Amino acid sequence: MSIQAAIDTLTAKGIDIDTNPPSVKSKSRDFFWYSPVLKDRLDHVVADFVATPKSEAEVIDILRICHAEDVPVTTRGAGTGNYGQAMPLAGGCILHLGKMTAVKDIAPGRVICEPGILLKDLDAACKADSGQELRMFSSTWATATIGGFIAGGSGGVGSVRWGGLRDVGNILRLRVVTMEAEPRVMEITGDDIHRVAHAYGTNGIITEIEMPLAPAYDWVGIFLSFKDFEEALRYSYDLAACDGLLIKLATIFEAPIAKDYFQRVAPHVAEDDAVVALMVAPHAMPGWETFTAAYSGAKTIYVQGQTDWPRQPGHVFEYGWNHTTLRALKVDPSITYLQIAYGADDPIALIGKVKERLSPEVLQHVEVTRSGGRVTMSGLTLVKFTSEERLDEIIAMHEEMGAINFNPHRYTLEEGGRQTVDDRQLAFKREADPKGLLNPGKMITWDDPDWSYDSMYAWPGLQPKTAAE
Amino acid sequence: MSIQAAIDTLTAKGIDIDTNPPSVKSKSRDFFWYSPVLKDRLDHVVADFVATPKSEAEVIDILRICHAEDVPVTTRGAGTGNYGQAMPLAGGCILHLGKMTAVKDIAPGRVICEPGILLKDLDAACKADSGQELRMFSSTWATATIGGFIAGGSGGVGSVRWGGLRDVGNILRLRVVTMEAEPRVMEITGDDIHRVAHAYGTNGIITEIEMPLAPAYDWVGIFLSFKDFEEALRYSYDLAACDGLLIKLATIFEAPIAKDYFQRVAPHVAEDDAVVALMVAPHAMPGWETFTAAYSGAKTIYVQGQTDWPRQPGHVFEYGWNHTTLRALKVDPSITYLQIAYGADDPIALIGKVKERLSPEVLQHVEVTRSGGRVTMSGLTLVKFTSEERLDEIIAMHEEMGAINFNPHRYTLEEGGRQTVDDRQLAFKREADPKGLLNPGKMITWDDPDWSYDSMYAWPGLQPKTAAE
Repeated sequence: MSIQAAIDTLTAKGIDIDTNPPSVKSKSRDFFWYSPVLKDRLDHVVADFVATPKSEAEVIDILRICHAEDVPVTTRGAGTGNYGQAMPLAGGCILHLGKMTAVKDIAPGRVICEPGILLKDLDAACKADSGQELRMFSSTWATATIGGFIAGGSGGVGSVRWGGLRDVGNILRLRVVTMEAEPRVMEITGDDIHRVAHAYGTNGIITEIEMPLAPAYDWVGIFLSFKDFEEALRYSYDLAACDGLLIKLATIFEAPIAKDYFQRVAPHVAEDDAVVALMVAPHAMPGWETFTAAYSGAKTIYVQGQTDWPRQPGHVFEYGWNHTTLRALKVDPSITYLQIAYGADDPIALIGKVKERLSPEVLQHVEVTRSGGRVTMSGLTLVKFTSEERLDEIIAMHEEMGAINFNPHRYTLEEGGRQTVDDRQLAFKREADPKGLLNPGKMITWDDPDWSYDSMYAWPGLQPKTAAE
Repeated sequence: MSIQAAIDTLTAKGIDIDTNPPSVKSKSRDFFWYSPVLKDRLDHVVADFVATPKSEAEVIDILRICHAEDVPVTTRGAGTGNYGQAMPLAGGCILHLGKMTAVKDIAPGRVICEPGILLKDLDAACKADSGQELRMFSSTWATATIGGFIAGGSGGVGSVRWGGLRDVGNILRLRVVTMEAEPRVMEITGDDIHRVAHAYGTNGIITEIEMPLAPAYDWVGIFLSFKDFEEALRYSYDLAACDGLLIKLATIFEAPIAKDYFQRVAPHVAEDDAVVALMVAPHAMPGWETFTAAYSGAKTIYVQGQTDWPRQPGHVFEYGWNHTTLRALKVDPSITYLQIAYGADDPIALIGKVKERLSPEVLQHVEVTRSGGRVTMSGLTLVKFTSEERLDEIIAMHEEMGAINFNPHRYTLEEGGRQTVDDRQLAFKREADPKGLLNPGKMITWDDPDWSYDSMYAWPGLQPKTAAE
C-alpha cells in the first residue's frame, strides 16, 4: 500500500484531497459512539486522507488510483450511521460523497439524484418540483444523506406505511462503480439491488439513486400520553392497521422515557406516562380524531399547529427511531440501545413479556412498521449499560423469549443482521472488489467464512489502538 | 299522499319535474337486473315523477313539499347500483341528483364536491387541479356518481391499497338534508358518517361530500395468465402484501371466465387459463417485474402501452369488480353472482375449498383488498343461475364452509349486509325521516323489527305487479 503515492496522483488529477489531521480525524468518525462496545473498539480508528469527489468521473479516478496503490476505501455520506459502518478500520482513504448532491430528474412517483444530497434537501427539491417527498427517511433527515441511508439504513419514518428499504419497490435503481483496475459502472435494478443496498459500501460505490416518491403533506406531529403502556401499544398498532388513515410515524415510549429524556415534552407528562408520537396527514386528522375517541386512556397532549407549548418540541420524528437513543444519551451517557424485531403475530404480548422481565434496566421504545402486508413492531430499546457481559445477557434473554436481535454493538454486516452472510452481497464483492479494499473488516465472511458467531468478531486488520494514539 | 299536489307545487317553485312516462320509467331503474331474483320482484316498479334539483336549496324544497304531501322519495345518481337500491318500491318521487355536479374545493389530499358528479369527471378535475385522484372507485367509474358510490357502494378499485369506504378516513365529511316538515341540513363527520354512508338514501339526502385523495398516476393495466388457479391467487395475495409496490387493482378470474366472457382477452388465453388483472403505478413497474419473475407460472400477456393487441382491451378495471358479472351476463344471460368475504386468515385455502365443491356451476372471481391492516380476499363469484332454490342452496354451502355471504339478491340493507340492523342507521332514520318516506322498503327493521331472516323479505308496501303492468 502506498498512501502517499495515491495522495500525489489524486492531487495531480485535481481531486479534492484532505490530509489535515484534525479534519481527517473528524471525517473518520460516524455515530458509532451510540454503542459503548463500538466506542471501546473503534474510537481510535482514523483514515490517512479524505477524498471528496464532485462527480462520478472523479469517483472512478479515486477508485482506480486507490486500487492501483492498494489503499482501502471507506465511503461516507454525512457520517450519521451508528453501526460504525463509515469507520475506516484499516485507515486509508475516506471517500466523502458530500459534494455529489445533484437532483437529476423528478417525475410523478420518482426521483433520480446523487448520493450525497441530504434527505432534507432532497425532500425540499421534490416538494418544490411537484408536491412530492421520499416515502421514508431516517430520523437524521436534517443531517443525513440519501446514499448513507440506503447503504447503511433499513427504514425509518414512513415505514409504518411503506415497509422497509429492503421491500421490493422502495428502491428503484442504483448506479454503482466497482473497485477494480478499470472501475466499471453498473446499473443495478430488481433483486440485484440487495447486492449493494445496506452493504456499507463494501462491494461498490453508489453514484446515482432512483427512489420512489409519495405525495408531500404537511404532516401533523402529535404526542399522546397513556397511563397504561399496553393500551399505548394497542392504540398505535390499531391506528397503523387503519388502511384509510394516512400516517407516517407511530412510536411508543415506555414511562419514564418522555419525562426523563424529552426536555420539551417532560413538563406535559408525568413520570408514569407512556407516550405515543405520531405524524398524521392533515386530511387524515378528522379520521384520527374519530379513531382516538374510542381509546379512553388516550390523552392528546400536543397537536402541531394547535397546541401552544411555551417551548415547541420541533419535529416529532426527531423523538423517534435513532433519535430516541440520542436524546437519552444526552441526558444519561450510560444509556445505550438494542434493535429488536417483535414480529407481526402477537408483538404486543411479546413486548409485554420482555418489559415484565427487564424493565426498568431496559425501557421499551417501539416503532410500528409494516412488513409483508402486515403491521409489525420493532424495538429500538433503551438499555442502561453496565457491562458488555450484561448487555450480552440481556440480548440472550430477548432471543430466549422469541424477540429477534439485530445487534447494533457490532461493526460487521453479519452481526448487525441475522448472523449469516448475504450470499448476494458476498458474490458481488468478489466481482466488484476482488482485492477486498472497500470498507475492509465489515463483512466477516469475506475474511473468515467459517466464523462461528460465538463471540464478537474482531477483525484482525483493525488498526491497533496504539497506532493512532 | 297527493302526487299531483306535490308535482304542482314543485313545478310552481321552478324545479325540474319530469312526468313523461317512458322517461320516468327509465329513471326508475337501476342495475337490479344483475339479479334474476330482483328482476322478478322489481321489474315492474316505477315512480310517479322525477325531480332533478340543481342545488341544495332545491333539494330542501323537494323534501319539504314531498314531506307535506306524504310522497315517498327515492334518490338516485346514475342508477348503476345493482342491489335495487335506487328502485322506487312505492312509486312517488325519484330524486335525481345528476345535475348537482359542482366541484367546490380541491386541496392536498382532499376534495369537496356535490353528489351528482361522475367519478370519472371528479377524477379529471382533481388530476387537472393538482395531480390527484380518488383513492377508490367502482368499476362503473365512467358512468356512476360519487354520491351513488357512497350511498350504495362499499369499495372497489383502490381498496387493495386503501381498504373500503367503511374504513375510517376514507370518507371525510357528508352534508345531509333531512326529510321533515322543515328539512335540516347537517354536517356529518367521524363515526356518524356510518349513519348515512351505504344507507341507500333511507335516512337523509347527501348534498355535499368531502373525500380524501391520493396522487394520480398513469396506472398500467396488466393481464397475466396462470395454468394453476391457486398460484394465481397466491401471486395476487403476495403482490398486494408488498407494502412498497403501489397497485390499485388485483383481480383473479378462474378459468374459463377470461376465455368465455372477455372478448378482447379471449384470443390471448386458453380455456384452462386463470387470469389476473392488475393496475400498477408506473414507478412500481420495475419492482413489479422483479416480483413477478419469482412466479414460474405467471405469464404476462398484456401490459398497457407495451403490448400490441389488435383490439385493445380498454380499462383493465372494467373487467373487475361488478364489471366481471356484467361482461359474463352479456354473453350468457343466465349468469348471476354472489358477494362473498373469504377473510384474512387463510382465504386461499377457503377459496380452494369452495371451488372444489362448486366449480364450474360457480366460478371464482376474486378481488384482493385490504382490511384492518391485512390483505383479504372477496368473491364476486359468478353463478350459473338455475333457480332461486338452488341459488339459496349455493349460498348456504358457502356459509357452511365459513365463507361469509352478503346477499346481492335482496333489496334491503340488512339482507345485503349481515342480516342485522345497523342501529346507527335506524336511529338516524328515526331522527331524519320520521314519516319513513325516504326510499321506503329498503330497511327491514324500520318496518318489521322482529323479522327472522328465514326467507327473503317482501316489503308489504311494494307496488303490486298488476298496478304497473
